[in-house]
Amino acid sequence: MKNELKDRIKIIDNALEKFLPEKDNSQSVIYRAMRYSVFAGGKRLRPILMTEVCRMCGGILDDVMPFACAMEMIHTYSLIHDDLPAMDNDDMRRGMPTNHIKFGEATAILAGDALLNKAFETVSEYGKDVPNAMRAISILALSSGTEGMIGGQVVDIESEGKDIDIDKLRYIHLLKTGAIIRSSCVVGAVVAGADDDEIKAVDEFASNLGVAFQIRDDILDVTGNAQELGKPIGSDEKSGKNTYVKLLGLEKSEELVEKYSKKAIDALCIFGERAEFLKRLTDYLINRSK
Amino acid sequence: MKNELKDRIKIIDNALEKFLPEKDNSQSVIYRAMRYSVFAGGKRLRPILMTEVCRMCGGILDDVMPFACAMEMIHTYSLIHDDLPAMDNDDMRRGMPTNHIKFGEATAILAGDALLNKAFETVSEYGKDVPNAMRAISILALSSGTEGMIGGQVVDIESEGKDIDIDKLRYIHLLKTGAIIRSSCVVGAVVAGADDDEIKAVDEFASNLGVAFQIRDDILDVTGNAQELGKPIGSDEKSGKNTYVKLLGLEKSEELVEKYSKKAIDALCIFGERAEFLKRLTDYLINRSK
Repeated sequence: MKNELKDRIKIIDNALEKFLPEKDNSQSVIYRAMRYSVFAGGKRLRPILMTEVCRMCGGILDDVMPFACAMEMIHTYSLIHDDLPAMDNDDMRRGMPTNHIKFGEATAILAGDALLNKAFETVSEYGKDVPNAMRAISILALSSGTEGMIGGQVVDIESEGKDIDIDKLRYIHLLKTGAIIRSSCVVGAVVAGADDDEIKAVDEFASNLGVAFQIRDDILDVTGNAQELGKPIGSDEKSGKNTYVKLLGLEKSEELVEKYSKKAIDALCIFGERAEFLKRLTDYLINRSK
Repeated sequence: MKNELKDRIKIIDNALEKFLPEKDNSQSVIYRAMRYSVFAGGKRLRPILMTEVCRMCGGILDDVMPFACAMEMIHTYSLIHDDLPAMDNDDMRRGMPTNHIKFGEATAILAGDALLNKAFETVSEYGKDVPNAMRAISILALSSGTEGMIGGQVVDIESEGKDIDIDKLRYIHLLKTGAIIRSSCVVGAVVAGADDDEIKAVDEFASNLGVAFQIRDDILDVTGNAQELGKPIGSDEKSGKNTYVKLLGLEKSEELVEKYSKKAIDALCIFGERAEFLKRLTDYLINRSK
């Protein structure tokens, strides 16, 4: 799986290189700042999910690629803004200085803005002739907004340092990380021209994968290896973050990862053998050590 | 003109109310923060330009309204982020506390992000069936990105406190304020189904209006009335900002306002009497006292 993923990452990176090239003009620093974080060695989970769902549903890779890269830009901008002093105030990410440490706070704010903006430049320019392009843009935009990712960040910030219950935590993750994992998969299906049953199955898969993935993240913050993760262990606990481990304990959290990943895989049954890669990917993601 | 503009502002505000309603959910604070800045009494210049160009070119108001409101959201998000401590560090805007003073820095960053995101939610959801919708989205996105507004902000930040020449200043404004004034007008024409000659004329009008408007802004910062402007007089000079007045002096700046506004009005001649409102608006804007 690791080598397969490396190949897929390379394909995504090549496309990102095309949609977000270096520029040698008066504002070249903003391109450097954007590219610094985009090419900082991310797992490319969202674009890999989107392109694979598209393939599974019979779609064309070139069609979905602008959307897949737009999603990675949105994911990256959210990390840059999340790391800012006024937000999580993180100096390191993936073993490298965060964007504002490297480029200063003003440029980091603008680099985040620019990546969000560039996502929509990319889909409206390179994705415009793709089947169901407008619907795909709408799904993507909704999932990253106030009823999706940003909404989740807001509730997360408001609940930091407070005791919350499991329903609230689930709500935060449903929005903060779940929404764009879902939309990544659904956009892949929509661009492929999937029918309603297929889209529903993909959504069911992605919703459950999102929860399993998030709980694994929480577990790794406690049990992981700092060097492998590229961030200090126990940083969630230290910052008073609410996590599944904090609320339910390690054992129960592990059980939930199993439960949700099984539900994710079960949802793919209507795709038969075509879902083989996504099933293996799910197994790999929930058993990952970083 | 003042009363006519009041009526137009009311129409824009009603549409903004529809596209950006209050929400009573767990993340309601982000809607409050977004609405706080959107409904802070802006001039609605960009949406008024867009809707009027659309009307002038024979288009339908309802068609262009999602795009007009999206543009106002983008303009507003840029102001929120511009005011942040890491950027211009302004406490007051339009006589009111800035977004981060009112809601805290984290929420202000997210409210800006959310408004940029909401702009694309709005056009892809409410504007999807409009003529040339995808082209309009692309123009809008390009103008607010790294080759438009954000690019201008980057160059502006880099040149603050340094001596720059008039060409650099012109480049900054071409991008920072000019790009979205141009795209506001061009999108209005595109959505109306204007032909290439009309779009070119509209673009010429907007480019010149943008310059004239910016120079007037610089002049007002020196000669204006603090209470009318809603910000302290001389704040540009105090912050070491490069302005037309600083580089060319008041008299020459006034001459340029005249020159560019005349060029703007001349560009509208192909529209005959249909351009009457835009001509009067141009006169009004370049002679404004706030």
